[in-house]
Amino acid sequence: MEETGSMQRIFVTGAAGFIGSNLVDRLLAAGKSVVGWDNLSTGREEFLESARTARQFSFVRGDNADASALRQAMRGCDFVFHLAANADVRFGTRHPSKDLEQNTVATFNVLEAMRANNIKRVAFSSTGSIYGEPQVFPTPETCPFPIQTSLYGASKLAGEGLIEAYCAGFAFQAYIFRFVSILGERYTHGHVFDFYHKLLGNPHQIEVLGNGKQCKSYVYVQDCIDAMLLVIERAEGAVNVYNLGTQEHCTVDESLGWICTYLGLKPQRFYTGGERGWVGDSPFIFLDTTKVRSLGWKPKLTIQEAVLRTLRYLQAHFPAGAKLRASA
Amino acid sequence: MEETGSMQRIFVTGAAGFIGSNLVDRLLAAGKSVVGWDNLSTGREEFLESARTARQFSFVRGDNADASALRQAMRGCDFVFHLAANADVRFGTRHPSKDLEQNTVATFNVLEAMRANNIKRVAFSSTGSIYGEPQVFPTPETCPFPIQTSLYGASKLAGEGLIEAYCAGFAFQAYIFRFVSILGERYTHGHVFDFYHKLLGNPHQIEVLGNGKQCKSYVYVQDCIDAMLLVIERAEGAVNVYNLGTQEHCTVDESLGWICTYLGLKPQRFYTGGERGWVGDSPFIFLDTTKVRSLGWKPKLTIQEAVLRTLRYLQAHFPAGAKLRASA
Repeated sequence: MEETGSMQRIFVTGAAGFIGSNLVDRLLAAGKSVVGWDNLSTGREEFLESARTARQFSFVRGDNADASALRQAMRGCDFVFHLAANADVRFGTRHPSKDLEQNTVATFNVLEAMRANNIKRVAFSSTGSIYGEPQVFPTPETCPFPIQTSLYGASKLAGEGLIEAYCAGFAFQAYIFRFVSILGERYTHGHVFDFYHKLLGNPHQIEVLGNGKQCKSYVYVQDCIDAMLLVIERAEGAVNVYNLGTQEHCTVDESLGWICTYLGLKPQRFYTGGERGWVGDSPFIFLDTTKVRSLGWKPKLTIQEAVLRTLRYLQAHFPAGAKLRASA
Repeated sequence: MEETGSMQRIFVTGAAGFIGSNLVDRLLAAGKSVVGWDNLSTGREEFLESARTARQFSFVRGDNADASALRQAMRGCDFVFHLAANADVRFGTRHPSKDLEQNTVATFNVLEAMRANNIKRVAFSSTGSIYGEPQVFPTPETCPFPIQTSLYGASKLAGEGLIEAYCAGFAFQAYIFRFVSILGERYTHGHVFDFYHKLLGNPHQIEVLGNGKQCKSYVYVQDCIDAMLLVIERAEGAVNVYNLGTQEHCTVDESLGWICTYLGLKPQRFYTGGERGWVGDSPFIFLDTTKVRSLGWKPKLTIQEAVLRTLRYLQAHFPAGAKLRASA
């Protein structure tokens, strides 16, 4: 599983983030050299504490908007994991330029830096959000041409398109991963984070965005990394697009139930109402993962296990009574 | 056909271009007020000679990169045709930032200017190129999620996604048109233009990009405008995506045959070879136009008639022996 082909010196954007830092640890454990790149706007230096003890690791603080620094930092690498992004899906309409700049233009800058350094292989963290509100469930990679419903999804779709065009125009090879939501250690935002912190603040009442019936899919971060590394090892096309998720889904209400049971709480639930938690929220996300499973991958944790694993991480790092660090 | 609903004062980006200037004339003839916007980089002032005689027309020279001028110019309008683009499909890889800036970021600026002016309705000239190299012919709007093969296609896909996200996030209404190649009066670039000028220069020999078997679809500019105006009148969704093309296709060789016959020439043909004329060229473009035809539209000209109409225009404006004005 950890054999990652010809990758030797790997550049990771968003290296101090949730998925990025877990990936960095895995790549280092597999004996790879890693250059981590992060602007530390939402990434956290402490997530790289273990990585920093490895001789094979170096970290460069920088922003994808700085094309020249990016080009320089990438020198000598032979593979890029482009994970840095504005992943703040809910608030796209509050600052519409953010997704464009941090997801679309940033991806262009990464591709140009690769081209300047003659690096041809890139893995990209896209999202199931680019399916908008699909008509087909589970939703396969080849579902009908979707209509975008969020600036986040639109900005990631644009990133995919740019990467694909570089494959055609500049002989790049790309691995595009359309994730469901990811759970696990170093999780820093999302519904488990929100519910956990809300319940720490008030264990008796909780506000739920939407009607609680939104049906979502989740995957554990280490399972996600297993899948990415396997695809990179096995997929041979120029453009390799893979959904990543489990064969399950759960409602927001169910997930909240697991969280409350784990914490031993029975809060009264208040719903903000409506099918969607926010503008652009998809009421049902469930991806067809036949393609990645056909390579031999399967997730080790169920959604419920991943939620509980996440809660254990949150409890260890944000114990009841401690001053909370606000989510970025 | 010319009833265009509640549009009264219409902002047209790319107003001095091939399609834009023909559209402006049609809108003025239908009694609308029009504000034309163009940076005149490829648009031509002479295309607006007739429009400039209309009281209801005003022209602002400006660039979509200038967000503040764009916002100001759009004031008081209630509908935007966003046609301005880098339509230079062939040379995307020579200057990769051009498509991103002039098609994707420019579209974002148009949408933000609309939002600042509380304009909610937009028509967008997208392209059949966003289907990449599809597996389904004729290709419907709902074909399987495509892979991009050109920076041009990727930049237009990104534009579509942004517009759709504005429909979801800001209650915009959009009409997205995926064109095949357009022919007719004021045509300024494309294969008929290239072949005509090559044959003016040397009537005995002609170079053909690719193997000449590339199979393409074309539509006459007035038919295209008919279709756009009809869709805007009839389609009622928030996001309305329509292919525009004829139910025919022809090969590059066939089209060259019509051109040679028309000009009375029998040049020897030299092929650069390969299935594609250039990187990102699609060897077969044929769109399913069932959706737009179901509204009652049908093209008045066949592809061959449109090619001949274009040749008559070129002959009138670039007669043999006259100094050629280079295509932008």
